[in-house]
Amino acid sequence: MASSTARVASQKALEDPLALLPCSSIAEFKKGQLIYNQDQPSTSIYLVIEGKVKVSRMADDGRQVVVDIYQPDEFFGESALLNLPQRSEQAAALDNTRLMAWSTAEIEDMVTKRPRLAVALLQIMARRSIDFTRRIESLSMDNIARRLARSLIRFADRLGTREEDGSSRMAPFTHELLAQYVGTSREIVTHYMNHFRKEGYLQYSRRGIVLYRDALGEWLRQNA
Amino acid sequence: MASSTARVASQKALEDPLALLPCSSIAEFKKGQLIYNQDQPSTSIYLVIEGKVKVSRMADDGRQVVVDIYQPDEFFGESALLNLPQRSEQAAALDNTRLMAWSTAEIEDMVTKRPRLAVALLQIMARRSIDFTRRIESLSMDNIARRLARSLIRFADRLGTREEDGSSRMAPFTHELLAQYVGTSREIVTHYMNHFRKEGYLQYSRRGIVLYRDALGEWLRQNA
Repeated sequence: MASSTARVASQKALEDPLALLPCSSIAEFKKGQLIYNQDQPSTSIYLVIEGKVKVSRMADDGRQVVVDIYQPDEFFGESALLNLPQRSEQAAALDNTRLMAWSTAEIEDMVTKRPRLAVALLQIMARRSIDFTRRIESLSMDNIARRLARSLIRFADRLGTREEDGSSRMAPFTHELLAQYVGTSREIVTHYMNHFRKEGYLQYSRRGIVLYRDALGEWLRQNA
Repeated sequence: MASSTARVASQKALEDPLALLPCSSIAEFKKGQLIYNQDQPSTSIYLVIEGKVKVSRMADDGRQVVVDIYQPDEFFGESALLNLPQRSEQAAALDNTRLMAWSTAEIEDMVTKRPRLAVALLQIMARRSIDFTRRIESLSMDNIARRLARSLIRFADRLGTREEDGSSRMAPFTHELLAQYVGTSREIVTHYMNHFRKEGYLQYSRRGIVLYRDALGEWLRQNA
């Protein structure tokens, strides 16, 4: 509860980067298409205009860890600010996706001319830091069932639409993708998704996931 | 190796926030003293002048996850940019520590007047994001021994001094603190610290840790 109160209370004070950025040309990517891989130099920051983007890290053995999923009006690729010779992550379109992109030099130039854009970007990155540390806490302390429950609630809050009955409707994330976010195998995610379905916390099909997020939040509290 | 090359290559292009910030008055904290807790509003960004600071998250059951340890010339408390009614973390002095602090309004004002400061802060936060996602990858994929090895190498690179024989000398981090960073119990950290000591990867005493980081890096590669 504390975090949603915080979100509302702080919302007023936050800058809106979208009001401060000039348009760039739009690039299109087909579902599944790679936007950049981790061997490429880090040269652009992207804004999602339409679709969804999965950013992930690839371990040496080919296993992926999903960093996050970005939706319209969200930025990714901010490592471009560091002018690194290689990104440490890859980005791929989860749906047919349209993006705007700005080079590092363009962003630095705009930030210099429009300091409120800098404050807006700093706020976005401060929020992401909190989000990453929350996930580090969950990975350090929670068992897989709890990690999965927290991840589903987070995706519902971030990417879902709230229905009148209090449930949240989300895209049909594959169990593979959830496993790459939670840090386990697809089989174990399927096991716990079945468990949560039987217990009435969610429904899922090829059309999407319906999550009873308040009930699942209560389950988290009761199974601490 | 890729990451240390990246660090060197990017260093030239990075802005230096310390050259761009005006001095503030200095606050002193004794070893062990709390700087802020997570129930306090988030109102200041801090710079370590002397000493070391531990930032951590506290779970409902009182267990701590160490977010990171900050040393002279490093910032913490950047969640102040979000004007949240509560911080999601606490900060405590690990040694006798001296800090400068700026309010959120002061930082926003300085960023507006000195846009290069904004770029510098954005770069710091982009680097922290990469660091957090690297840790999320390790927590998702590595067993405890590998997590501990990676954490020791990271602390050696960040906080240690390199000796002529290639070893790194660090402060005497307690096994408790390492456990709070790695996400396990103190007993398990002690078990693996003993193991690494017997295998010749490190020495430790109350005076500090000496880490043979290249040898431990090789161990990580061989035990993938």
